[in-house]
Amino acid sequence: MKTKERIVSAALQLFNEQGEANVTTNHIAAHLGISPGNLYYHFRNKNDIIHQIFLQYSDHLRKGFTPINGPASASPAVWFHYLDAIFYVMWEFRFFYANLNDILQRDDELHRQYLEVQQELTINLQSLLRELNKQQVLAIPDSEIEPITEILRMLVSFWVSYQSAQSLTPHISQAVLYEGVSRVLLLLKPYVQPEQGLEMAKLMAHYQALATKPSDPFHK
Amino acid sequence: MKTKERIVSAALQLFNEQGEANVTTNHIAAHLGISPGNLYYHFRNKNDIIHQIFLQYSDHLRKGFTPINGPASASPAVWFHYLDAIFYVMWEFRFFYANLNDILQRDDELHRQYLEVQQELTINLQSLLRELNKQQVLAIPDSEIEPITEILRMLVSFWVSYQSAQSLTPHISQAVLYEGVSRVLLLLKPYVQPEQGLEMAKLMAHYQALATKPSDPFHK
Repeated sequence: MKTKERIVSAALQLFNEQGEANVTTNHIAAHLGISPGNLYYHFRNKNDIIHQIFLQYSDHLRKGFTPINGPASASPAVWFHYLDAIFYVMWEFRFFYANLNDILQRDDELHRQYLEVQQELTINLQSLLRELNKQQVLAIPDSEIEPITEILRMLVSFWVSYQSAQSLTPHISQAVLYEGVSRVLLLLKPYVQPEQGLEMAKLMAHYQALATKPSDPFHK
Repeated sequence: MKTKERIVSAALQLFNEQGEANVTTNHIAAHLGISPGNLYYHFRNKNDIIHQIFLQYSDHLRKGFTPINGPASASPAVWFHYLDAIFYVMWEFRFFYANLNDILQRDDELHRQYLEVQQELTINLQSLLRELNKQQVLAIPDSEIEPITEILRMLVSFWVSYQSAQSLTPHISQAVLYEGVSRVLLLLKPYVQPEQGLEMAKLMAHYQALATKPSDPFHK
C-alpha cells in the first residue's frame, strides 16, 4: 500500500475504534510510525482524510445496492447480498454513523456529497422494492414504497446512534449491527408473499444467529 | 409563574428555537430580563436547567403512554391520544432529540435517568401492543412485540436527527414531526386487523394531512 492509502486505512481503523472526535492527525501518524510532516504532505488536515474515507463509503453504497432486475432479483442469494451489504457499510463506517450529524454539520461540502449519494441510494432502493413486488416476492402497496424506503434508510443510518443511547457504556459490536440487519428484515416481513415465507424464515434465523453471537475478539 | 419556572420555560423555548449548544445561561437571563446572578440563585449551571426540563420530559412520557386496558383500549380516540402524545413529546422537547447522544454522553446522571424512563416506556408500549392484540385491533406475533417496540422507540427518538441530516438547511417544523407520527402508523399498519382497516385509513389521513400542512407561523 502506498503511504496515502495507508493513512486512510489507519484513520478509518482508529476512527472506528476510538471515535472520530478522539483521533487527531498526530495519532494517525504515530500509529503508522510516520512523521506528521509526511502525513501533511498527503492531506491538509483530518477533514481531508474524512473526505477520502467518504469516497469509499459512497462507492460501497453505490455498488452494494445497484438493483438487479428480472427473475434473478427474487433469489435468496440476492437477499443475502443486500443484507450483507447493509451490515458491511454499518460496520466498516461505524464512526460515521456514530456521529453523523456532527460530521455533516461542520462540513457543507461533505454534506452535499452525502445528500447526493443518499438520493441515488433512495432511487436504487425504490427500484429494488418495486422489482421484488414485480417478481411477487413482496407485496408493498405502491403508495408505501417511498415511506418504507425512508424508514429503512433511517433505521440503517441511526441504528448505531440508537444503540449508543441505550447504555452508559455502549459497545458497538458486530452482533449489535446484525441486530439492525434483523430489524430491516422484520420491517419487510409483513409484505413478504406467503410462498416466500420459508425463505424469509431462513433469512431471519441466519441474521438473528449472527445478532446473538458473542463478539469475535478479533473484530471488536 | 415563579422565576424558577420562568427560567425553565424560557430555556426550553430557546433550546428548541436555537439549539441547546447555542444557548448559554446568559442568553436565558437576558431573554427574561433578569440578572445572571438571579438565574444562578435558582440553578447552578445550564445542565441543572436541563435536568429540570428532563423531569418534564419523563413526566410526559410516563403519563402519555400509560396503557389503557380492556375494550376501551380499542377505541379510535385512544389511538389519537397516543399518537398526539408522540407528536407532543417530539415537538416540545425537539432540542433534546436533535442532540440526544451529545446531551446524554456528557452527563451520566441524566443518561441513567433516561435509561430508567426508557425502560418504563418500553414496558408500557409492550403492554399497550399486547392489549391491542387481545382486543383484536392488531395481530402482532408474540415474538415480534419486543423488536417492534424497539423500532418504534428508535423511530420516534431519531426522527429529528434523521430529518436534520436530510438537508443542508434543515428546519424541524410541526409538519416534519407529524410525518414521523405517520411513519409510526405505517409501521403498525400491516398488523392491523382487517375489520379495523377503515379506522386505520382515517387515522392515516388525519396525520398525513398534518404532515403536509405548511408551517404555522406562530409555531415555527
